[in-house]
Amino acid sequence: MCQLLGMNCNTPTDIVFSFTGFATRGGLTDEHKDGWGIAFFEGNGVRLFVDHQPAMSSPVAELIKRYPIQSENVIAHIRKATQGEVTLENCHPFVRECWGKYWVFAHNGDLKNFAPQLNGSFLPVGSTDSETAFCYLLQRMRERFGEQSPDLPALSRFMQEICAEIAAYGTFNLMLSNGEALFTHCSTKLHYIVRQYPFPTASLSDEQMSVDFSEVTTPRDKVAVIVTEPLTHNECWTQYQPGELKVFVDGDVWLAGEAA
Amino acid sequence: MCQLLGMNCNTPTDIVFSFTGFATRGGLTDEHKDGWGIAFFEGNGVRLFVDHQPAMSSPVAELIKRYPIQSENVIAHIRKATQGEVTLENCHPFVRECWGKYWVFAHNGDLKNFAPQLNGSFLPVGSTDSETAFCYLLQRMRERFGEQSPDLPALSRFMQEICAEIAAYGTFNLMLSNGEALFTHCSTKLHYIVRQYPFPTASLSDEQMSVDFSEVTTPRDKVAVIVTEPLTHNECWTQYQPGELKVFVDGDVWLAGEAA
Repeated sequence: MCQLLGMNCNTPTDIVFSFTGFATRGGLTDEHKDGWGIAFFEGNGVRLFVDHQPAMSSPVAELIKRYPIQSENVIAHIRKATQGEVTLENCHPFVRECWGKYWVFAHNGDLKNFAPQLNGSFLPVGSTDSETAFCYLLQRMRERFGEQSPDLPALSRFMQEICAEIAAYGTFNLMLSNGEALFTHCSTKLHYIVRQYPFPTASLSDEQMSVDFSEVTTPRDKVAVIVTEPLTHNECWTQYQPGELKVFVDGDVWLAGEAA
Repeated sequence: MCQLLGMNCNTPTDIVFSFTGFATRGGLTDEHKDGWGIAFFEGNGVRLFVDHQPAMSSPVAELIKRYPIQSENVIAHIRKATQGEVTLENCHPFVRECWGKYWVFAHNGDLKNFAPQLNGSFLPVGSTDSETAFCYLLQRMRERFGEQSPDLPALSRFMQEICAEIAAYGTFNLMLSNGEALFTHCSTKLHYIVRQYPFPTASLSDEQMSVDFSEVTTPRDKVAVIVTEPLTHNECWTQYQPGELKVFVDGDVWLAGEAA
């Protein structure tokens, strides 16, 4: 199984602190050493870094930990291969374009006998069940809404339906973003926290590192962090219910509900 | 205007030497300081690094110069903005998926009054004429060949036609790769060299740096480098004719001909 990390904020924020703890699980404090990846939205653009080396020893991960890229939507993934070889094309997150926006997707879990009919509009490049699920999701999304990008309520209803449909094939913890909202779905395990004023000092569980967020934020900042396993041991993380979809906008929960 | 750099090899090769000279033009020895980008194929996967900072001062470019990523197909670009703002989404290369392969594209030039009808299968995220041309090219390619990826001769004929069509709107120097072949088209300026046994010692034009390629290669290696302006002052670069398409496979010219 893999682990997921997402961040959604109301102001561009760097993810150095959270990523440092998360990357430690990629080969040091945990077994997720079959590659990793991270995608940052900057405006409509995306920076995607993927590597099939363990996050712990990857020079690219080292860069991310030192270089504070500011973003309002981030999705990261460390991989423990279950389906698909350890190759670059099988590293999450995956990116596709739809309606003139980039869509970024990462998945934790395992889908069994999942072989949807793909019509060619979005096809997997690698051999993972995850990328196939992403392509199927986008194909269904474009079929449903045609040429026009839907609004957030319509998109959220669609996500509830499609997540329930795909989750019937196995474990489907996922993160998806179009740079405006961060959609998260939990089959088995996902936690989140909204950091806001008054900001605490947080200490990582996986490394000796603390940050006093009040020194690096303004009182109006809001930062939601979503992760498979809580990253800090002195903050209160909320665990998702199985089947739950949460949509984050501007650093806070916009919608929380059960998959239809 | 911008500058292009491409590499196609018969064995995975690092581009550190050529990129070092090329990146120097991104703000130091030349004026191309409105962002840059580089894409490396590794198997079917792609590593894409883009930045709207000048290549000379970008920490990501620094990583590329130090970290020898091995690839058989590389496309790089430094930008001097003519159309579209200096934002991340306007940095080349651009990547899309078609037929379950990634396609990477970069363009140097300026297209005037180019507003093709796009049917939604590939849409630009940014505001450059270049990304619009890339989306139009892919749309036409998928229309032409349907659900089946064509062979190289058919694809090359298509490229000759579409390049001639788009070049009617202005300057269309381009590089395109699907990880198997590197397609290059010259409207105004492009040079190439095929490095092979016996390998020379090459010296950069833009920086004090030399490499004795014979020390880092085997006698069967072949490396084609294609670039807007020659990178070295002691090698013999071949200049393209206007309207010329060259396709590189396994480090050598596979097809050279005029756009139909």
